[in-house]
Amino acid sequence: MNEKNVLPQSVSGFPEWLPQEKIAENKMLDTIRHEYELYGFVPLETPAVERQNVLISKGGDEKEIYALHRLVAQNDSEDKTASEMALHFDLTVPLARYVAQHYASLTFPFRRYQIQKVWRGERPQAGRFREFYQCDIDVVGEESLNLMTDAELPSIIYTLFTKLNIGEFVIHISNRKILSGFLRSLLIDENVHADILRIIDKKDKLAPEDMLQYLRESLQDMQDVEKVLSEINEFLSITGNHTEVFYKLRNFGVSNELFATGVNELEKVIEGVLSLGVPEKNIAINVAIVRGLEYYTGTVYETFLADHPTLGSICSGGRYDNLAGNFIERKLPGVGISIGLSRLFSRLLQEQKVNIEKSTTAPVLITVLDDAYMHTYLQVASALRAAGIGAEVYFEPKKFIKQMRYAHKKGFTLAIIGGENELSQDMIVVKNLQSGEQLTVSLDKIVDSVISQLHATQ
Amino acid sequence: MNEKNVLPQSVSGFPEWLPQEKIAENKMLDTIRHEYELYGFVPLETPAVERQNVLISKGGDEKEIYALHRLVAQNDSEDKTASEMALHFDLTVPLARYVAQHYASLTFPFRRYQIQKVWRGERPQAGRFREFYQCDIDVVGEESLNLMTDAELPSIIYTLFTKLNIGEFVIHISNRKILSGFLRSLLIDENVHADILRIIDKKDKLAPEDMLQYLRESLQDMQDVEKVLSEINEFLSITGNHTEVFYKLRNFGVSNELFATGVNELEKVIEGVLSLGVPEKNIAINVAIVRGLEYYTGTVYETFLADHPTLGSICSGGRYDNLAGNFIERKLPGVGISIGLSRLFSRLLQEQKVNIEKSTTAPVLITVLDDAYMHTYLQVASALRAAGIGAEVYFEPKKFIKQMRYAHKKGFTLAIIGGENELSQDMIVVKNLQSGEQLTVSLDKIVDSVISQLHATQ
Repeated sequence: MNEKNVLPQSVSGFPEWLPQEKIAENKMLDTIRHEYELYGFVPLETPAVERQNVLISKGGDEKEIYALHRLVAQNDSEDKTASEMALHFDLTVPLARYVAQHYASLTFPFRRYQIQKVWRGERPQAGRFREFYQCDIDVVGEESLNLMTDAELPSIIYTLFTKLNIGEFVIHISNRKILSGFLRSLLIDENVHADILRIIDKKDKLAPEDMLQYLRESLQDMQDVEKVLSEINEFLSITGNHTEVFYKLRNFGVSNELFATGVNELEKVIEGVLSLGVPEKNIAINVAIVRGLEYYTGTVYETFLADHPTLGSICSGGRYDNLAGNFIERKLPGVGISIGLSRLFSRLLQEQKVNIEKSTTAPVLITVLDDAYMHTYLQVASALRAAGIGAEVYFEPKKFIKQMRYAHKKGFTLAIIGGENELSQDMIVVKNLQSGEQLTVSLDKIVDSVISQLHATQ
Repeated sequence: MNEKNVLPQSVSGFPEWLPQEKIAENKMLDTIRHEYELYGFVPLETPAVERQNVLISKGGDEKEIYALHRLVAQNDSEDKTASEMALHFDLTVPLARYVAQHYASLTFPFRRYQIQKVWRGERPQAGRFREFYQCDIDVVGEESLNLMTDAELPSIIYTLFTKLNIGEFVIHISNRKILSGFLRSLLIDENVHADILRIIDKKDKLAPEDMLQYLRESLQDMQDVEKVLSEINEFLSITGNHTEVFYKLRNFGVSNELFATGVNELEKVIEGVLSLGVPEKNIAINVAIVRGLEYYTGTVYETFLADHPTLGSICSGGRYDNLAGNFIERKLPGVGISIGLSRLFSRLLQEQKVNIEKSTTAPVLITVLDDAYMHTYLQVASALRAAGIGAEVYFEPKKFIKQMRYAHKKGFTLAIIGGENELSQDMIVVKNLQSGEQLTVSLDKIVDSVISQLHATQ
């Protein structure tokens, strides 16, 4: 046991914030949770660890998984237990394991939100972390799940990001069947579909000519490659409002059943999204969205902030056919979205787009001018707290000016000030720290006075 | 990658709850956080991992620490990074490291709350877990910290546990200087003080005669052992209201400066606690409290639930001289308390002392009787949510009776019901699921009607 001189370092890729920053992050987390609950999602929290075989069975990248061991092995059964565990790398695998394990105790459709840290054991790239918050919702059905569920998620994204108030955003929506059906209609070999989709998935990161070249290479075995390429290119360029896009899609000359199903499903979803009050300007049909190649099978979503295009999608997800096929002999289709909050928050912080003015959660500081009146200061504090008003008492024996410096530094709204002069006459002063205004009030009116002044400064 | 037949198991000692239970746990977590904020504590969240040398330097038990490694080593620098990390086993070491590391950016006294999971790699005993929530607050001063801070913490315990509404509780308070000074006054060799304190710490778990026997063995080198034992016994038996206890302590014939300081400090703290409005019946001076032998130096707290004595202390803490001496060349005295929430919650759950009736966070279920009116159902949902009322739409094409079964099973308060009959006349039904009462209202009055009915059922 070292007694001294350990360098107090955190670990890179594991973000932590100063109090004023954490207050701002909590505000975002609270807004997200509140919105998820408004739509009737129930909370779920799974342990940070899962069995390693559970994580691997769902396709976890083994070099990204942090496994556990006891720091000092004891050659006992606890070592063995530890050696079976690893930190979860997302919230989807834990959801699948949880739903399969507790299947008989759950009510379906199972609507859950899950806001937890996840861990990825890879070198963090710019703006990415080894530990970060994910904020997920999923609706999991038994055997089937109505398509209108897919319409609800963009509505949540819309109302949530409007409340988060971090600038203009557009929700891109598609249905994977449209792109897959289109590729089939071009008679492209099924074996190269995955390659093609992977290239299209990188559309926004590639120069148009590079994308065409990659596609050309993948399609080299086809006849009329250039014609196919130009059709793909034209198809991916379809834009417009939803009426225009559906018109263009239906008149693109695609003859394929999967494609037709995809277009019809997407149209129903968009109708639902609009019925839920999402403005047309906040949605965009984008048939180029691919996402998780092996996972999503229908509706897919991505969300982009107008002011931060380089952030990529800040909220993505989609419809999948079967959540937990490797755990349970039941078909559990679902649809979900995920927000990678830490990355988003860290960017907003970097660009000074979050308010970090306050490093206090309480609006009122009670200063202590005369220890002889400690009983009164404490009573005032209790009375304010009992009325639901956050209050801190400044106990340290510092000069008044230092107490006021503390009040300003932490961003209190009001300071309560009382010395012998005031308190001997059962009076006390409430000072507005923004305007500098002072009001002398009777001690027994202090709570009412604070309430009305807090009200006035909001 | 296994494709099938992985047993969906969680790991023992890592609790997870069903939705209705998690809703109840969240309610407790929210109450705790809200109370901490009412007293002006700011949120802090540190990563789940710390450097191993940081954890060990503060006296972590190495066999209880879960260290990390990549599941599949890559022989690169990432392996090395992983090998330096371990999961934190409490929130005090991370606090110490954080305060030392961010010292220049913090405002002192630094009042922080921290509600996070911690991990301990030992076989969980009855009601103890390998992963559990701790809910901590600490006030950390620079060089000094006013004693009135020690009076604030019992006030928080009191108002918080009153709001948690889990039965009668008593906060036991002492000052470590009283017991230490008393032992010195008996001329007990300083070398056996630690032994004696360790035995007294187990007072509640030992039969009185066993405790005496252990003490007798530790004191075997003394003359007049039986006389000393009887004095210790009598001292530890001091009870009464605070006036009585202070009278008894001051008239016990102890002549020792540390003892006198301890009694005076404790008296000031108790005065503050009473000024803050804590009823006498919720506090007990208990000079036998020891707690963390090497850590606490002044005020100490333990909290016991009257209905659950076997739970032991559910909220404990105390005053320490120096938080981060091994990290930084500054004296940072502090005082703090910690609630081990998972253990408490799990016990309350076991004894059916928590309300787990609802497995929904939204009070309103909108049923779907006729797909042709989907637009209307979705608009009603949006209108309710815009008014801050949680609402879920039941999209699955199930018979009405099944939809109502779902509503009852999840514990919704109101169901909104509209078929062709009602909706063709712009009317809709609000059904109170507790009373069974139904009210047919005009569609454009639905939000007002729901608000007033929710109000009435509260």
